[in-house]
Amino acid sequence: MIERYNTDEMESLWSQENRFRTWLEVELAVCEAWMKEGVIPEGSLRNILERAEIDQERIKEIEATVHHDMIAFVTAVSEKIGPDGRYLHLGLTSSDVIDTASSLLMVRSLRLILDELELLSREILSKAFRYRHTPCMGRTHGVHAEPITFGFKLLNWYEELRRDQGRLHSALEVMRVGKISGAVGTYAHCPPSVEERACDLLGLARAKVSTQILQRDRHAQVIAALAILGSGLERIAQEVRHLQRTEVIEVLEPFYEGQKGSSAMPHKRNPVICERICGMARLLRGHNLASMENIPLWHERDISHSSVERVVWPDAFNLTHYMLKKTREVVEGMAVLEDRMAKNLDLLKGLVFSQRVLLGLLEKGFSREDAYVIVQEAARISLEKEEPFLEVLEKDPRVGGSFKGQELRSLFDMGYYLRFIDDIFGRFSAGEAVTGDQDVTRKEGLK
Amino acid sequence: MIERYNTDEMESLWSQENRFRTWLEVELAVCEAWMKEGVIPEGSLRNILERAEIDQERIKEIEATVHHDMIAFVTAVSEKIGPDGRYLHLGLTSSDVIDTASSLLMVRSLRLILDELELLSREILSKAFRYRHTPCMGRTHGVHAEPITFGFKLLNWYEELRRDQGRLHSALEVMRVGKISGAVGTYAHCPPSVEERACDLLGLARAKVSTQILQRDRHAQVIAALAILGSGLERIAQEVRHLQRTEVIEVLEPFYEGQKGSSAMPHKRNPVICERICGMARLLRGHNLASMENIPLWHERDISHSSVERVVWPDAFNLTHYMLKKTREVVEGMAVLEDRMAKNLDLLKGLVFSQRVLLGLLEKGFSREDAYVIVQEAARISLEKEEPFLEVLEKDPRVGGSFKGQELRSLFDMGYYLRFIDDIFGRFSAGEAVTGDQDVTRKEGLK
Amino acid sequence: MIERYNTDEMESLWSQENRFRTWLEVELAVCEAWMKEGVIPEGSLRNILERAEIDQERIKEIEATVHHDMIAFVTAVSEKIGPDGRYLHLGLTSSDVIDTASSLLMVRSLRLILDELELLSREILSKAFRYRHTPCMGRTHGVHAEPITFGFKLLNWYEELRRDQGRLHSALEVMRVGKISGAVGTYAHCPPSVEERACDLLGLARAKVSTQILQRDRHAQVIAALAILGSGLERIAQEVRHLQRTEVIEVLEPFYEGQKGSSAMPHKRNPVICERICGMARLLRGHNLASMENIPLWHERDISHSSVERVVWPDAFNLTHYMLKKTREVVEGMAVLEDRMAKNLDLLKGLVFSQRVLLGLLEKGFSREDAYVIVQEAARISLEKEEPFLEVLEKDPRVGGSFKGQELRSLFDMGYYLRFIDDIFGRFSAGEAVTGDQDVTRKEGLK
Amino acid sequence: MIERYNTDEMESLWSQENRFRTWLEVELAVCEAWMKEGVIPEGSLRNILERAEIDQERIKEIEATVHHDMIAFVTAVSEKIGPDGRYLHLGLTSSDVIDTASSLLMVRSLRLILDELELLSREILSKAFRYRHTPCMGRTHGVHAEPITFGFKLLNWYEELRRDQGRLHSALEVMRVGKISGAVGTYAHCPPSVEERACDLLGLARAKVSTQILQRDRHAQVIAALAILGSGLERIAQEVRHLQRTEVIEVLEPFYEGQKGSSAMPHKRNPVICERICGMARLLRGHNLASMENIPLWHERDISHSSVERVVWPDAFNLTHYMLKKTREVVEGMAVLEDRMAKNLDLLKGLVFSQRVLLGLLEKGFSREDAYVIVQEAARISLEKEEPFLEVLEKDPRVGGSFKGQELRSLFDMGYYLRFIDDIFGRFSAGEAVTGDQDVTRKEGLK
Repeated sequence: MIERYNTDEMESLWSQENRFRTWLEVELAVCEAWMKEGVIPEGSLRNILERAEIDQERIKEIEATVHHDMIAFVTAVSEKIGPDGRYLHLGLTSSDVIDTASSLLMVRSLRLILDELELLSREILSKAFRYRHTPCMGRTHGVHAEPITFGFKLLNWYEELRRDQGRLHSALEVMRVGKISGAVGTYAHCPPSVEERACDLLGLARAKVSTQILQRDRHAQVIAALAILGSGLERIAQEVRHLQRTEVIEVLEPFYEGQKGSSAMPHKRNPVICERICGMARLLRGHNLASMENIPLWHERDISHSSVERVVWPDAFNLTHYMLKKTREVVEGMAVLEDRMAKNLDLLKGLVFSQRVLLGLLEKGFSREDAYVIVQEAARISLEKEEPFLEVLEKDPRVGGSFKGQELRSLFDMGYYLRFIDDIFGRFSAGEAVTGDQDVTRKEGLK
Repeated sequence: MIERYNTDEMESLWSQENRFRTWLEVELAVCEAWMKEGVIPEGSLRNILERAEIDQERIKEIEATVHHDMIAFVTAVSEKIGPDGRYLHLGLTSSDVIDTASSLLMVRSLRLILDELELLSREILSKAFRYRHTPCMGRTHGVHAEPITFGFKLLNWYEELRRDQGRLHSALEVMRVGKISGAVGTYAHCPPSVEERACDLLGLARAKVSTQILQRDRHAQVIAALAILGSGLERIAQEVRHLQRTEVIEVLEPFYEGQKGSSAMPHKRNPVICERICGMARLLRGHNLASMENIPLWHERDISHSSVERVVWPDAFNLTHYMLKKTREVVEGMAVLEDRMAKNLDLLKGLVFSQRVLLGLLEKGFSREDAYVIVQEAARISLEKEEPFLEVLEKDPRVGGSFKGQELRSLFDMGYYLRFIDDIFGRFSAGEAVTGDQDVTRKEGLK
Repeated sequence: MIERYNTDEMESLWSQENRFRTWLEVELAVCEAWMKEGVIPEGSLRNILERAEIDQERIKEIEATVHHDMIAFVTAVSEKIGPDGRYLHLGLTSSDVIDTASSLLMVRSLRLILDELELLSREILSKAFRYRHTPCMGRTHGVHAEPITFGFKLLNWYEELRRDQGRLHSALEVMRVGKISGAVGTYAHCPPSVEERACDLLGLARAKVSTQILQRDRHAQVIAALAILGSGLERIAQEVRHLQRTEVIEVLEPFYEGQKGSSAMPHKRNPVICERICGMARLLRGHNLASMENIPLWHERDISHSSVERVVWPDAFNLTHYMLKKTREVVEGMAVLEDRMAKNLDLLKGLVFSQRVLLGLLEKGFSREDAYVIVQEAARISLEKEEPFLEVLEKDPRVGGSFKGQELRSLFDMGYYLRFIDDIFGRFSAGEAVTGDQDVTRKEGLK
Repeated sequence: MIERYNTDEMESLWSQENRFRTWLEVELAVCEAWMKEGVIPEGSLRNILERAEIDQERIKEIEATVHHDMIAFVTAVSEKIGPDGRYLHLGLTSSDVIDTASSLLMVRSLRLILDELELLSREILSKAFRYRHTPCMGRTHGVHAEPITFGFKLLNWYEELRRDQGRLHSALEVMRVGKISGAVGTYAHCPPSVEERACDLLGLARAKVSTQILQRDRHAQVIAALAILGSGLERIAQEVRHLQRTEVIEVLEPFYEGQKGSSAMPHKRNPVICERICGMARLLRGHNLASMENIPLWHERDISHSSVERVVWPDAFNLTHYMLKKTREVVEGMAVLEDRMAKNLDLLKGLVFSQRVLLGLLEKGFSREDAYVIVQEAARISLEKEEPFLEVLEKDPRVGGSFKGQELRSLFDMGYYLRFIDDIFGRFSAGEAVTGDQDVTRKEGLK
């Protein structure tokens, strides 16, 4: 990860200092649990809670000798506490602390992501309603198909983000779990009751069974959810890039006072934020992969996942958080050129109504095959001669002879194509609280 | 995908013939919906339902000209139906049929996967209970750590598969959705009511909003769930491979009467099934990646996802189904050499009790640092001289002087390490129906 | 891999039958080498060469019992040979045969790929020269930048394919290697001289050192080269898709007599071949990944790579071969609409000459910063008012006052922008033989 | 990338400051070229060379307004130069500078990698010769196969690294190229002669044809070469992990004075360096993927590759450099327990000689099938009863009756299995200079 793409919230959450703080959070919860077991005297606990403190310099110093960051951490904090320091880390293995703390970090990161996702979702939904009746061209294969509205396009983005929300909630729930079960998961030196109490204090469920660590399918699920979300944000960003093409130019991402698009070509206004988002989605997909390779660890654990996670976790959360913020910036500030949308709608001189003509011919009794050939041929002529599609059709005696008066012309009606837009928007509410998708999600969100 | 790794169920589900059958299922449901709209006369519908039939040869013939498989399909089926054939595919775009049919195929595939996963889960849970009190070595970093039981190891596999079940159920629910909304999702030629009725008939929800197609985050979620499951099966298979190593040889995957392990070395008995499973997990991870790249399609859709899906979907489902069956074969038929487990437990001559000695010293008043150094040093001597750890410790005056009588020896007690195994198993029930994890899952499972 | 995307050449190369044939090729080469060692009598060798024959049914039958395809193969062929059959596979381990045969298959596949790549390269180079002077818009960020020619665009594709050729040649050379060194690579039962002779007969180098198998970095290099080539073909295909957009419509991929673009919209003409190629590149990237995961096998080999390779090798070669053929089909048959290119060049009403105006102002003594601001502002006005850029500039007294007579207008000269196109084409020769790697690489290496 | 895994050399090479320095290097080379064109007066050039200076603070300040780092850079350096500053960046587009500078950074990074790779290769080769006659078990499928020597194992690593060297050299050569061809590659504002001279001054070849940028297949080739190397280092690291397993314990990675293996279990000595290397290979494979997705950019370029490269390039080089150093640390400092190797060799009580017995029976006239069954059965008995294989065989009348005197026993001869080890080592020279690619490749290419 490079600084340039960090967000403040994620950067401080994943800072070395905060990681140590989160370790301490876990150690102290365990001490409290031991106290309730009657093992640590209440006075000692008070002493520990009061004096425990992180001294990064001292930790570094010790680590240089012991080559083990957790041992260095425990030693350094114990020194601060004094004699009661020997209660710290009692009966624990490093991973009890690290993995439980990582769960806290990931859950908190997911909450930041969900908050940001909600802001983005609301913004998109609000824009969707704003442009619900703004006609624009629907395109398949990059080719004009049939009319839609710009708000309808946004509504589809919104609904995909809702599914992302569901995936993130499920992942969060799978991740909201701690383990204080010792070196191989058997509680050999620290009873299940300590795990239960400590996890409870930390707001985590406890793993029903664990090895030295929590199994990595949990973490892979989280990163996979981020990679899918990232690929969805790429879909949005890519759409804006397409719509900002010189030949299309229906939407422009925000451009700031004083900004320069190109060092060489002063006329350029490039969708650089959206391009950046697209690149980042590639990074997330790469990280997703490394995370899945972390699942098949050896026996009760090997530590090969650790170097991956030191890089992938902060990177993936920072990137996703950044992408969400930037996508919101784009959606909030984008210029929507409605007149260009209107102009582009007419680019094919009526060809986009071809399906309706086809269906009209079917109604007039033509077979599907014959009707198709007639319409396809007229379309070709219209394209080649740049002649309005309606006029070409009228000249064709098979067509012209079948329709009376304005009947044929009436098929060229945008309103007809968009008559169900309100029905679709009716499935959503403009003020829709972006709460869970269904009961399922809500229940998961509550825990 | 190669035939060798197909399962019968998946192969027939994903056969070309069955794909056409599923397309027809969708087309007929739409016809029925149109009938209820009053557009197709009841008699015509009866006629359609009676005569519609798939003729693969004829479809191929037509496709050779039109270069479009859906058009070829519709034309061929219409021919069979006769004049009422013109009602087929009424107001539809190809993707209405293909995508809705794909949802059916994926949902049915997921159900096959879930069935097979349940069989495997039950088998593992049953074996876990069977070996719940069979001590074996717990290993971290590939190095002896502390004792566990073999059943406890299996219980951890079981619990991971339970999470996979949850992921698959969520993916199934996201995938259990159809769309009959036309070329760009606006219902221009086929009203929402037809979509609703047709989806209902097919047992699918309808997409709240769609483009020409269902958005590909849905499908990516499915394949990601398979890739995570596959990586989990790799964890199991890899464990067996480790335990079948010549030096360890605690578990052996089944070996069949007449089987030959090596063309050159007749003594070989290799964990080839498990190795195969490990390789397949790599394939799934690769497929997962291609699926995520399918998400950011252009505008209202481009068709670049199609070639990916023709390969990845049948492959991924076949592979996963095959892996599940083979893993079950391994778990059912594996030889568990309990005496070897016992022998290996003593390999380090008591060293695995080092943590308990450390804690014992802490209780005797040693500081953590001093205790650690004492124990680590004794461990080194024991290893180097191949002398029982207990004897080395007894010779150390600091240790020997601190413990009285059998006190030190009593720390070398396997039972102590395993005293919470029953507590952990108590969280599970031997007869536990592998039905959904929570209410949530159960509801999803019912549909 | 699905049949639909197989090419005839690759399909028969990777057929089960041909695999057995290639195994036999290796076995027979080894027999011949043993004969030269004086171990197999000349008569027996003649007998073996004459009678050895593949009976797939028999092999399948035996495999059902022994669960080992090589043993089944050797047994079945031995049966055909009769008593001299016992010389077959003498001193060999399965992988001696399989891996050496796989090298043959991969080398032959690479040659097919290289042949097809050469055809495509020539086609592109020839089209590049044909359109070398056809002006079209150069675009960065999807936004009009400065003019290029269409042939120049193609030349860039050509040069990338030349680098792919280099990568494939290197990969082929790394892959052109056999191993007959036994179960762990020590020649325990078959001396190095047999390996040397057999490899020589097969046109392969011998591995300087091997384990039971050839190391998988070799194969990963091959698949990585294919994945990079595939991503390059995606670049080409994507470009055509962009140029076929309705709003751009400068190039169209071939469309066949009778072809239907859409079942619903008869006017549609979609770049479906190019979209298919783009999807396939994703598959190759996924396969590339699985191939790299195959490198770190255990000890002297484990067999986890095998299931991956059964799927990935035929798939990756078939896909790449198919993509090359299809890309050639596109390049050969594409419609190049030169008038549309001309029209699009003028879309921005002269804005694309902005850099030259900027440099003109610098020559007139403006600072870069001032000049930039002047030009950027004029560009904005021109865009907003849809007024020719030249006219806007002329109205600006700072600009108008600095240029005399036709001086400013003369900066709006396409010829100026394209004056070095011939220089660039001069680095290539229209008839340039796309010859083998060695020369190419050497020349490039000299710089 | 996290600091923890950076190496000093790579960190300073990829620092922001050094990136700016490299940009300046390119800008100044272009100025010199312009001077030779007669465009920049010699005095101005001297002035520029003298005064040009990087002020990171000032650059940041300007970037905050213009949102474009190259423009900020050029403006800030121009300010330092004074009026002659207007010659800076003359006729250039940002990517002329950035891409050419990136080539310099990548080439320099590759050289650092190659240097480190050479050190590692030499170390491994030297250790290979040292242990060339140290017998140890050869294992396939994790199961004892036949004896090898430890040096032979290392020799195989060495030879794989030689291939990595070849791949890196090829990648370096493809990357050793610059481009100063303007906004779309046409030299519109800066003639080819400037590109030629500037590249020459920088020690780069010039791209024969380019767009706004150098095509990304070049960079993807580099990262793919790193990912393959990383997967090879994973193979080495994984081997050490296997050999350090408690049950095997033939090799131990270095363990430092004062190091603690586990916070809980003082007896633990874990292969943590090797585990870390394995994890890092996963990161490289993920990065490789993102790099390949960077190839299909839009038209004459889009900038979506940029965010990927800001993360992937420094990360991939740092990781690889770190992994190489750490692997060397492991190979240099590893404990090789020859007595354990000897002990493990006898673990199967002679079974590892099974193939030779099989071949012996063939020589005695048994058919391959009969011989196989006899040996396999004896092997089973030996394993089950833990009885020496030789004794079991002697008891079998079919075997016992076929061999006379010491004939059977003589087949149980380690020396026989290792008789070609010296032949293999003879293909290498202990003092073999690990020289550049050219010679190596040529020699290999000749075969």
